[in-house]
Amino acid sequence: MTESRDRSQHLSRRNLLLGAGAVGAAGAAGAVGAAVGHAATAEGRPVRRVVPFHGGHQAGIATPVPGHLHFAAYDVTSTSRADLVGLLQDWTAAARDMTAGHPVGGPSPASPLAPPEDTGEAVGLDAANLTLTVGFGPTLFDERFGLGARRPAALADLPAFPGDMLEPTRCGGDLAVQACSDDPQVAVHAIRNLTRIAAGRAAVRWAQLGFGKASSTEADAPTPRNLFGFKDGTANVLGADPEALHNQVWAQAADGAPWMAGGSYLVARRIRMVVETWDRTSLDEQQQVIGRTKTVGAPLGSPHERSAVHPGSLPAASHVALAHPSRHEGARLLRRGFNFVDGSDGLGHLDAGLFFLAYQRDPRHQFVPIQQALAAHDAMNEYVRHTSSSLWAVPPGVRPRGWWGDTLLA
Amino acid sequence: MTESRDRSQHLSRRNLLLGAGAVGAAGAAGAVGAAVGHAATAEGRPVRRVVPFHGGHQAGIATPVPGHLHFAAYDVTSTSRADLVGLLQDWTAAARDMTAGHPVGGPSPASPLAPPEDTGEAVGLDAANLTLTVGFGPTLFDERFGLGARRPAALADLPAFPGDMLEPTRCGGDLAVQACSDDPQVAVHAIRNLTRIAAGRAAVRWAQLGFGKASSTEADAPTPRNLFGFKDGTANVLGADPEALHNQVWAQAADGAPWMAGGSYLVARRIRMVVETWDRTSLDEQQQVIGRTKTVGAPLGSPHERSAVHPGSLPAASHVALAHPSRHEGARLLRRGFNFVDGSDGLGHLDAGLFFLAYQRDPRHQFVPIQQALAAHDAMNEYVRHTSSSLWAVPPGVRPRGWWGDTLLA
Repeated sequence: MTESRDRSQHLSRRNLLLGAGAVGAAGAAGAVGAAVGHAATAEGRPVRRVVPFHGGHQAGIATPVPGHLHFAAYDVTSTSRADLVGLLQDWTAAARDMTAGHPVGGPSPASPLAPPEDTGEAVGLDAANLTLTVGFGPTLFDERFGLGARRPAALADLPAFPGDMLEPTRCGGDLAVQACSDDPQVAVHAIRNLTRIAAGRAAVRWAQLGFGKASSTEADAPTPRNLFGFKDGTANVLGADPEALHNQVWAQAADGAPWMAGGSYLVARRIRMVVETWDRTSLDEQQQVIGRTKTVGAPLGSPHERSAVHPGSLPAASHVALAHPSRHEGARLLRRGFNFVDGSDGLGHLDAGLFFLAYQRDPRHQFVPIQQALAAHDAMNEYVRHTSSSLWAVPPGVRPRGWWGDTLLA
Repeated sequence: MTESRDRSQHLSRRNLLLGAGAVGAAGAAGAVGAAVGHAATAEGRPVRRVVPFHGGHQAGIATPVPGHLHFAAYDVTSTSRADLVGLLQDWTAAARDMTAGHPVGGPSPASPLAPPEDTGEAVGLDAANLTLTVGFGPTLFDERFGLGARRPAALADLPAFPGDMLEPTRCGGDLAVQACSDDPQVAVHAIRNLTRIAAGRAAVRWAQLGFGKASSTEADAPTPRNLFGFKDGTANVLGADPEALHNQVWAQAADGAPWMAGGSYLVARRIRMVVETWDRTSLDEQQQVIGRTKTVGAPLGSPHERSAVHPGSLPAASHVALAHPSRHEGARLLRRGFNFVDGSDGLGHLDAGLFFLAYQRDPRHQFVPIQQALAAHDAMNEYVRHTSSSLWAVPPGVRPRGWWGDTLLA
């Protein structure tokens, strides 16, 4: 009895989410449907919040930034190229399920004698705008998988930046998955299931949770605030700006690695903020450091958040002036970072900051020169510590019968 | 210009949230009001989500459990009783502001020459059902503050439990603050500002973030799931059950510490789940360990989640059977734990689990005997590691002119 009830609920969740098919056990399904509907409408949200998984670009780059992040970097523990391909294929199948709001393995009921294909903590939750975005680290192109000749020139190792305080256990990795969702439980569920699927082929190297998106890719959304209390990402590359996406974000076949066409390059940096010091700094000093006002977010001396930025009229060492595109041959970044707090530092302080995620067409001409200028001169350096750094080639989107990385590995 | 604009926005946020007062600069306020209104209604939520701060009991115990937790334990670094009193008074004033959706210090504009009283990252956000709940650890009653004779008998140190793997840097503390909110940025903002206010008087000892509440105190809400994928808290003490709250949760004057009347005792345990092992376990085994079915959450052999639990008909070592009130003279716990993921463990696994928070009238008769039975016999022990433990006397609620702890320290 228990099993058949489980099965009917399993099916009914899918029916509810997809609006498809007949319901096997009307009584049980009705009860479950009511419960799920309640869960969704209690917060006034629609039951379906699905970001399409397939497309020319991976979701999770130019798509809207939801409120929660779970990012995981993996070491491939097998040296077999077939294992790597199999892992990416298995991950793709699971990602199709999860981004549609299904459990991993689809709606078929679990055998009581086997471990469930899905770990279960997202049962009763919808897709919550889950996106899963995969990246390949520079080390994937070493001798193990015969990919050395396919390494994109744009995936050049980042240089050391002055002041970096990188912790090796938070850096690098062969593979990365960025999970974004409105619901942290959905993002965590996704990474946890992908981790489980990877067993014997890849293992977690490091992982990071984030909340309270620190940038937006939507023009008409309020600009979020980082843990310095300032608006972050006012001048971000927007998801509805095809020209900027083409020029600044999407790799092109002509860039030298045709398999990356439609992909992008991701720089991920864990930037700890020394919030205790920052919080003892005067409002005026804070605004001089950023180059914008705190409450409104206007460039200093200008009235509005969206007022044009004239770097020459801002403090020379201000963050906004140093990072301005006019100083870097027009280079911009699509940022979708998240705030984080990872408990305390053991010294009486919160371990808090910004997990910076920046997508771009070529880091050699975008992140690297911008960060070189910031690392050398930014007044903010007194208040930040870069503790993690990684670089990823994010392949193009997946076709309905394709899989992550098939343009590289098929 | 910048300053006056900041000031008008500052005021307008308060006006919007409180619906009170005249707006100084209509143009700026209108723009800000639209932005804030947009932020709130984009998720279909009301602009005001305020849980009253004052009352006979502290909020954050029997009140509904929102989706996010930031919990911080502090060491008092001053040995002056006056400093301790001053800290609790300052914290109370800030908590009044923040739980009402105001910045710390209220709406008065910051001087550009001084550090802002509020750190700013919650500007534009509403109160998001923020609750702040303070607890006093056993060490607060040592010789430093002359409180030894006031230590409640119910605040007896917890015994060592078999299998505990406690990390000293995650245990204990003189003071605790539990921040719960619908929005993690609001919870983090609150702890961060209380931490700042404590500078020179108390420092963070350890802190924990949580998400995806693992229990509910509301009768008609769907039961949340923990990271084992099982519903958690089906038989929880409910916030609308005054008899159970009286008997199981609220300390009474006759219990021996009159200053605690209306308060409660909190046991906080960080329970790491060995999810990789769990995920390789068959569905049948998982259900035998818990004593309930995974999808429905019904007691094994019964049809419904709310079916009566008969411990004698469940596996003897199942979690539900061992913890059942009938085995512990009727003792129950009000649980409001949260799921957590703290990155990876450095060994290829996620560091994930349940941050267990249990409120009760007297741990000597509730948590302690229940956990002794579980530690000795629970089939779940193979899959969990208790890595943090702490115990707190949670004083009664605050009156409009009162402050946290005034029944003990005034």
